[in-house]
Amino acid sequence: MKFSPLLQELIDSFKCLPGIGAKSAQRMAFHLLERNRRGGSKLAHALSTAMTDIGHCRDCRNFTEQELCEICQSPKRKLATSLCIVESPGDVIAIEQTGEFTGKYFVLMGHLSPIDGIGPEDLGLDRLAQQFASGQFTEVILATNPTVEGEATAHYIAEIAQEHEVSITRIAHGVPVGGELEYVDGNTLSHAFSGRKRYSL
Amino acid sequence: MKFSPLLQELIDSFKCLPGIGAKSAQRMAFHLLERNRRGGSKLAHALSTAMTDIGHCRDCRNFTEQELCEICQSPKRKLATSLCIVESPGDVIAIEQTGEFTGKYFVLMGHLSPIDGIGPEDLGLDRLAQQFASGQFTEVILATNPTVEGEATAHYIAEIAQEHEVSITRIAHGVPVGGELEYVDGNTLSHAFSGRKRYSL
Ligand SMILES: [Zn+2]
Ligand SMILES: [Zn+2]
Repeated sequence: MKFSPLLQELIDSFKCLPGIGAKSAQRMAFHLLERNRRGGSKLAHALSTAMTDIGHCRDCRNFTEQELCEICQSPKRKLATSLCIVESPGDVIAIEQTGEFTGKYFVLMGHLSPIDGIGPEDLGLDRLAQQFASGQFTEVILATNPTVEGEATAHYIAEIAQEHEVSITRIAHGVPVGGELEYVDGNTLSHAFSGRKRYSL
Repeated sequence: MKFSPLLQELIDSFKCLPGIGAKSAQRMAFHLLERNRRGGSKLAHALSTAMTDIGHCRDCRNFTEQELCEICQSPKRKLATSLCIVESPGDVIAIEQTGEFTGKYFVLMGHLSPIDGIGPEDLGLDRLAQQFASGQFTEVILATNPTVEGEATAHYIAEIAQEHEVSITRIAHGVPVGGELEYVDGNTLSHAFSGRKRYSL
């Protein structure tokens, strides 16, 4: 005995979401069917559109449904000489909210993690090397998370950047070690930016 | 500065799921876009179909995409003289797995909760009264959760049932008080069924 085929399929499909097991999936399905069908249909539409239409920005790899994201399209940023490297799209939002940085970003969409099979090519480091080689940037700010993986990734990128004549900095002051960048408050993050120092290999 | 319009809409849509706040919604969106677009599209399709095609069984109110659910369609159950009343579709699955019960069900899809504005009509109690009146059932088993709301709902239904000549029982033995029926193991639930006793108003 199982649920009706369509309900069972819905419950199984919810399990593809991170952190959602059988019981949570069931609760989500019942909740939408019983209390919010309009919300469920809206989610279905948003999901369907997002999965097919959202790609990566040609320049910074951030999620966007256009060829270039809003930041990379901005005329003010086009000639930026600073490149800030972050792990996730949420980090871009967090940094933008400080108003501290007006350069461009490069979004790794993760960090080096040999155990999960995530290597340099998965983080677009070949494209990043091209950007270093273009000569546009005089400063690279390493803003990966202050975790073991984030530090290892920063170190790896610093080695690539060193081959081109760019100054390499690492956000430092105020970011709690072991924390995740996007959960840090704006003030702390502002300090982390203004207190950045030269990265030593 | 926000995410791209389609990404922001996806994140906002995820917030209609129970227990999902801004940060979890963001994590879900990133995870699907970055690691499982096929799963995301499958979920979109399952959701869309479920929201439009799943309704309630005409007899028992359980979720089904047909007029009658599988149990109510079963020839073996058609002439059943026992009616088991539960709060949720998950309870039906849990009871079916014990193999202890071969009658029909009535699924309330909740419990009486004046504070949430959930009254008798929201639980289909008018239809339940019709089923009592039909004379098919000689026994009504109250299998609502052993919580304050579940007990109050059982009491309310017992009062309706009393007006018709049906014997009223309440599953009892083994169900831990304050717990939720569908999380109880099959063995305990079997005992609860076989140890049911007459309900006294
Ligand atoms: Zn971009
Ligand atoms: Zn039914």
